[in-house]
Amino acid sequence: MPYDFDTATAVSLSRLPPIDSAAEPTRYEADLQPSWSIAGALNGGYLLAILARAATAGDPAHPDPAAVSATYLRPPRPGAANVEVQPLAVGRTLATRRAALVQDGRTLLVSTVTAGRLPGPDQAATWDDAPAPDGPGPDDCVRAGRSMPGMSVPLMDHVDLRVDPADAGFALGRPSGRASVRGFLRLADGREPDPLSLLLAVDALPPAVFGLGGQFGWTPTVELTVHVRARPAPGWVQVTCRTRRVAGGFLDEQAMAWDSAGTLVAQSHQLALVGKVG
Amino acid sequence: MPYDFDTATAVSLSRLPPIDSAAEPTRYEADLQPSWSIAGALNGGYLLAILARAATAGDPAHPDPAAVSATYLRPPRPGAANVEVQPLAVGRTLATRRAALVQDGRTLLVSTVTAGRLPGPDQAATWDDAPAPDGPGPDDCVRAGRSMPGMSVPLMDHVDLRVDPADAGFALGRPSGRASVRGFLRLADGREPDPLSLLLAVDALPPAVFGLGGQFGWTPTVELTVHVRARPAPGWVQVTCRTRRVAGGFLDEQAMAWDSAGTLVAQSHQLALVGKVG
Repeated sequence: MPYDFDTATAVSLSRLPPIDSAAEPTRYEADLQPSWSIAGALNGGYLLAILARAATAGDPAHPDPAAVSATYLRPPRPGAANVEVQPLAVGRTLATRRAALVQDGRTLLVSTVTAGRLPGPDQAATWDDAPAPDGPGPDDCVRAGRSMPGMSVPLMDHVDLRVDPADAGFALGRPSGRASVRGFLRLADGREPDPLSLLLAVDALPPAVFGLGGQFGWTPTVELTVHVRARPAPGWVQVTCRTRRVAGGFLDEQAMAWDSAGTLVAQSHQLALVGKVG
Repeated sequence: MPYDFDTATAVSLSRLPPIDSAAEPTRYEADLQPSWSIAGALNGGYLLAILARAATAGDPAHPDPAAVSATYLRPPRPGAANVEVQPLAVGRTLATRRAALVQDGRTLLVSTVTAGRLPGPDQAATWDDAPAPDGPGPDDCVRAGRSMPGMSVPLMDHVDLRVDPADAGFALGRPSGRASVRGFLRLADGREPDPLSLLLAVDALPPAVFGLGGQFGWTPTVELTVHVRARPAPGWVQVTCRTRRVAGGFLDEQAMAWDSAGTLVAQSHQLALVGKVG
């Protein structure tokens, strides 16, 4: 039985491949699953995983997405979509390709994916200044349900997300007063994390600004860049998200993700629009 | 007299413009100035400013680059280059375009530029959790010269960069032992900062890993995303850079920039390769 995440992010070649031809993109077919969504919108990290899967398909020399930067142009709807992949530079260490999500002839999401071979979970770091934060473990956190105040979160059927009780008060109308959130997650059906699923992990927590209270609605992503730093060890992935500034209609959110061995495995950086409430 | 930065980042249409035609990119000409370089390589932030200038040219409704994500494919050389700009989505609030730097028919640097109208320096923030760091002011910092151990930094003829004495020891063989660096900068000829020059500012300090000692050479950027958060007030721009992890041949660097009024005006996030020494 394939795992949910792999089925939901699967891509297949839609015709004979002009692999790494500069003239024409390689076109993949994907099927955007409606349940990988939050408040009616397909999750941005889920979409990123589909693009990265297509961008690394058929290139065993560069199996891991190391840097994925994406700009969200228009919201896709569930159902059939194409991923168009175009090579930009394919070298010994790194391969860079553009991957765009297209539906009904419209480009909805564009990305640049740089792939290579990431260090494994047991490879020592030359420098590491990012220890996993202290706090309650997953069993002492609050499991996020598929209902939140005013919105439905079907994504939580696929992701087992545990939120630090100190950050979970927003769901009960008692926001923490801080624009930060900490939690643990794993795929609900037991699939272990890998670089592709980390693209989902960094975007699966509630927005950090929910900790500031009810004046914030969902926050549509403008730009999201993820740097994957290592292949994660099996088990829970711990994620922290923090917003530094909300001004002029924009907000940022930085996420960091650690694997169960405490290794920093992904960092992300997002610019989003301040969402409307209601 | 135009300012150095504006001359060095100028772009001009190379032929009659098919502005915002989806079919064909608008092509600009640029002249990459050899002196905007570090250790023989044109500065990545300088190149980003050229791309963002081209991507926002001729669109007064979206004057400011808000998000610029770039992937560095191959190093450009000084001299004539083209910037090819292709619209992706042009709306009321935001306009997103691709901008690519091309030399001799080869694409060297690709970017996605999302432009809009940024808040001014006096616009209040809804939330701000990023105060400018304490420490010595620019007059009590060390002015960076155009010579560093083993490398020449002509960029410092254009940028007046003052490095916190606590972080400047690497230049004298006394690294701080921390992968961080703090400094102030302004353009040497008195040009005031704006969103375009902030793209340079976040990439103009020495790599944070220089604080770890001589095992690190220059660090070639793989991916650099800058989120510009506000139009800066006149005066010095304060910048901090920090590296969290060096492993598997990759390192990250986060930069934050504040204007002279203490407003967080830009954030950046970089993935780079660990450079060879010598």
